[in-house]
Amino acid sequence: MIGPVVIALNSPHSFWAIGPGHLAWLREAFPALEFRTAADEELPTALGAAEAYFGWRFEERWLALAPHLKWIATPAAGTDHLPAQQIGAFGAVLTRSYGFHAQPMAEHAMGMILAFSRGLLASSRLQRTHLWWKDDLAGEFFDLAGATMMIVGCGSIGTHLAGMGRAFGMQVLGVRRTMPHGPQSGIEWIAASQWRHTLPAVDVVVNLLPATPDTAGAFDASTFAAFKPRSVFVNLGRGTTVDHAALLDALETGRLRGAGLDVTDPRPLPRRDRLRHHPRVLLTPKTAVFSHAYMDRAVRFFADNLHNYLSGRPLRGALDESIPDRMEGIR
Amino acid sequence: MIGPVVIALNSPHSFWAIGPGHLAWLREAFPALEFRTAADEELPTALGAAEAYFGWRFEERWLALAPHLKWIATPAAGTDHLPAQQIGAFGAVLTRSYGFHAQPMAEHAMGMILAFSRGLLASSRLQRTHLWWKDDLAGEFFDLAGATMMIVGCGSIGTHLAGMGRAFGMQVLGVRRTMPHGPQSGIEWIAASQWRHTLPAVDVVVNLLPATPDTAGAFDASTFAAFKPRSVFVNLGRGTTVDHAALLDALETGRLRGAGLDVTDPRPLPRRDRLRHHPRVLLTPKTAVFSHAYMDRAVRFFADNLHNYLSGRPLRGALDESIPDRMEGIR
Repeated sequence: MIGPVVIALNSPHSFWAIGPGHLAWLREAFPALEFRTAADEELPTALGAAEAYFGWRFEERWLALAPHLKWIATPAAGTDHLPAQQIGAFGAVLTRSYGFHAQPMAEHAMGMILAFSRGLLASSRLQRTHLWWKDDLAGEFFDLAGATMMIVGCGSIGTHLAGMGRAFGMQVLGVRRTMPHGPQSGIEWIAASQWRHTLPAVDVVVNLLPATPDTAGAFDASTFAAFKPRSVFVNLGRGTTVDHAALLDALETGRLRGAGLDVTDPRPLPRRDRLRHHPRVLLTPKTAVFSHAYMDRAVRFFADNLHNYLSGRPLRGALDESIPDRMEGIR
Repeated sequence: MIGPVVIALNSPHSFWAIGPGHLAWLREAFPALEFRTAADEELPTALGAAEAYFGWRFEERWLALAPHLKWIATPAAGTDHLPAQQIGAFGAVLTRSYGFHAQPMAEHAMGMILAFSRGLLASSRLQRTHLWWKDDLAGEFFDLAGATMMIVGCGSIGTHLAGMGRAFGMQVLGVRRTMPHGPQSGIEWIAASQWRHTLPAVDVVVNLLPATPDTAGAFDASTFAAFKPRSVFVNLGRGTTVDHAALLDALETGRLRGAGLDVTDPRPLPRRDRLRHHPRVLLTPKTAVFSHAYMDRAVRFFADNLHNYLSGRPLRGALDESIPDRMEGIR
């Protein structure tokens, strides 16, 4: 390796920004390399000498300014916000990060599920207006123990979530294109061709599908029509996988008890969008990945990959490596 | 047994009312006994011949009308809504029920904890008013993985909750007067005399204390002063164990990140009570025990005890049997 590693991990939030401790640790682990940090606005210049780049953002026009760039690493789990095709055509490798989003995302999913299953959202409104609202909540709950959760797009995040569901006494169904070998956290695997037929028996559906041509609109009117009455839908995958009009309709007919959405399409939703104001919709602004351990883990993942890069081994998280297994053929 | 068993398990909610299936099952299990159901207003008459009573309510004045009554069984976990002393003086045994409140209550506690740890309550408000509120939530979360939960009054409910906390990667501390023998669900036991000294290291405090003279006001200003800054407090025990003024103060100084209260004293809170309107207080109207499996389990518990009664064995849940172990000496 001859060029420097340029790092632009800037954020107003400490848990998403690289800190002096992380840099000192990288420099000690790789004494022969040069690490340069850059503000986002300095990147067009800073990338001029870079061989590798580790950062949140990357714009297509920066490629022309980075003649030596071989590797672009993002600490994000997804790469649909990056110009992947152009990066490939340019001849650089783009890697996503994985393995450390599971913990906060699984906590987030369980929180959304329990907010509906225990009537917490309804109660937080009624506490302000009703003297005693116990009877109002009698229809607003169900037991997770004995309930069935289906995880659509069940990779490492889903497997982590499955373990939590099992601790609550839930039966967990996993959907992915390629069935994994051997038992995993008590997940019962459903073939991608069969998952819609299984929906009528499912109390909680968690969507973890990434955005691909195959998954666009996977949750449309015909899918929601197969949902069990009064079931819960959680989307921590991508907004484009859900038809919002069909989702609203499912909420209003009572097919859905509630929907927890960490992602939407478009993002953000327009101010007057009905999903924002629906009493049984909980929106979070892509905060399922919020974790105070995020940057520690992202830097460790990057350092492991940097060892791979230096020794000519394949890079973890390179596109086409693992996402397709989880999503293709889901329609 | 000569007198009938009188049953008054009436509720507008199916999960708290005895159904024809339950009665048929009891009659088949005890063919020699007579089971009579009664509406609450029929009880003064119906109790005239009763030897045993299984019901939600019992009024002191009914004792004089029930000369043959030997046993009063409630499907509730607590008996502080019943005239226990007068029943004892009358010579009847009062039994509470236990072992089946743990599942819904532990789900409820985890839901309240996650509502704060994932910023869900804050998000559900901001989704209606803010175009994009991700930055607003950056201070509103913490990871449960690696966090510490203390369960004060850690009996069967707490032990169930501990198992869930462990599945989230939490460290779980249990407080009770009598340390149990042997390992239990990965709980680290703290002596009742030591728990306040341990509070500064605790991220989530779950109060499951019952109401006794010993526990009244256990969570007062000096207790909250020992809490870790930005910790979460959940009360599923009894309202009298918490000084509400001290709780409000802890919320307003930022000592507490949030409070989830299923019980309050008084109950209900006055309409203008500040806890009702505080943005970081989640109130539920004693719905932590809501479970669709409630009556099935309560009837099974009662039937087991009825076998004990008929064969002269001690009754499960008789007062003084197990509550004191969990609570005395907690101050």
